[in-house]
Amino acid sequence: MMDGQWITEAANGYGQTIKVTEKLFSTQSKFQKIEIFETEKLGRLLLLDGIIQLTDSDEFAYQEMMAHLPYYAHGAPEHILVIGGGDGGVLRELARHKTPTVLDICEIDGEVIRAAREFLPALACGFDDPRVNIHIADGSEFIRTREGFYDLVIVDSTDPGGPGAPLFCAEFYRSLKNSLRPGGVVATQAESPWLLPDVVKSLLNAAKENFRFAAYGAISVPTYPTGMIGVCVGSDSRDITTPAAGVSPEIAGQLRYYNSDIHKASFAMPNFVKSLLA
Amino acid sequence: MMDGQWITEAANGYGQTIKVTEKLFSTQSKFQKIEIFETEKLGRLLLLDGIIQLTDSDEFAYQEMMAHLPYYAHGAPEHILVIGGGDGGVLRELARHKTPTVLDICEIDGEVIRAAREFLPALACGFDDPRVNIHIADGSEFIRTREGFYDLVIVDSTDPGGPGAPLFCAEFYRSLKNSLRPGGVVATQAESPWLLPDVVKSLLNAAKENFRFAAYGAISVPTYPTGMIGVCVGSDSRDITTPAAGVSPEIAGQLRYYNSDIHKASFAMPNFVKSLLA
Repeated sequence: MMDGQWITEAANGYGQTIKVTEKLFSTQSKFQKIEIFETEKLGRLLLLDGIIQLTDSDEFAYQEMMAHLPYYAHGAPEHILVIGGGDGGVLRELARHKTPTVLDICEIDGEVIRAAREFLPALACGFDDPRVNIHIADGSEFIRTREGFYDLVIVDSTDPGGPGAPLFCAEFYRSLKNSLRPGGVVATQAESPWLLPDVVKSLLNAAKENFRFAAYGAISVPTYPTGMIGVCVGSDSRDITTPAAGVSPEIAGQLRYYNSDIHKASFAMPNFVKSLLA
Repeated sequence: MMDGQWITEAANGYGQTIKVTEKLFSTQSKFQKIEIFETEKLGRLLLLDGIIQLTDSDEFAYQEMMAHLPYYAHGAPEHILVIGGGDGGVLRELARHKTPTVLDICEIDGEVIRAAREFLPALACGFDDPRVNIHIADGSEFIRTREGFYDLVIVDSTDPGGPGAPLFCAEFYRSLKNSLRPGGVVATQAESPWLLPDVVKSLLNAAKENFRFAAYGAISVPTYPTGMIGVCVGSDSRDITTPAAGVSPEIAGQLRYYNSDIHKASFAMPNFVKSLLA
């Protein structure tokens, strides 16, 4: 809802509100309503179906953790796929690395990419890397065409209610696993245990059923409801809660959130989350 | 501001909103406006001067970390002082332990304690422990009367703008240090680096100037703006980022947030906070 100059996202008796100064873009695509606003203090704001996806002010926390945490859990991935992520932010982070030779992205809604390229240039610069291949398709179908190909698959989805719903199914997790080369790692956007404990639990269970190592990590992002969001990481080859490689100085200088200590610390959970995920 | 049945706290173009169903209590004390509401989904809500202090749904995260993190940084404190904390929540957590022989609380506003006892029983039960001594006084003055007495002092203050302002001064930190016995530990509510980076920096600097070991830890609390709040911990005797003692099973079973892994992990900071605090 938009109340005067404030955009409010609320559910279950709790929400957040952001002051906007200008509507830059609005369209109804085949899949969802896409809106981009200029805010008073937080830079640009992307909404999908009225749900806050990101602001310029804090998107780095999410994008860096979704990209670099699984990147360093693997150590040196070459073939990488991003499912969703049409804003380009996760690609932007992956493109900082030298090891990738393939940076595929499979986004269901080409309108999101077009909107980001025009109005979210700080994120969409991720599409400019020559290693990037854009596939406009349903990720749950696309992944089945790529058996044994990827070292890293990152699922940067919307919430389970939107067009990302198939990306929260157990069957999709099996397809993810089949798309990997030996040593491969998957990472999926995994919601907040404060807000959607059942979703967090079912995502981690799906990861545990399919991978020898699976864990849920936390990311501090003020403009997600409850101020945190999770990433669920799985692999058959190694304990992903510690990095396989340190961050080289030239990369570290570009990062505002991720470091090796945060990698490890993000998997430490409060007792109520440990009980939930036990 | 209260908009229909929603209470909204906003500043700097960003805020949060909570749906309330009933106003249970409201008074203007000598120091501040105290309000308690029943909410639709988050239990009871305490506001001081319109600022959200806590809800029943997530207060355990804050109270446990403010109490048990410095408790276990010390290991076995006997003489403990809480400055502020008039809701009783930090006392409730400290009273779970056997080692304390003195549980002093110095709260400037007796009206907060009276309101909590009547309308926030889940927190105010902390006052029922026979070891508790209540002092209604200015903490920055009270602390100067207690040289070399405490093993642990916890400052559970409001924000720097309210009646807690003297608790954010460098001089107060020196008084805190003087109030400690050898091996003593202090912990202060230390805001969010997303929202108030300058306050976080000055608090940690004051701690560093006064203590050999000082560090800033993060707590995930959805109903604080940005979804996180910090605790600044200082000691001359040991590195407080690791616990001096593990949590005994009978205590662990009562805790919903604190554990030894979270103790250590809470001090890992994203790069932008490390740069701020360097």
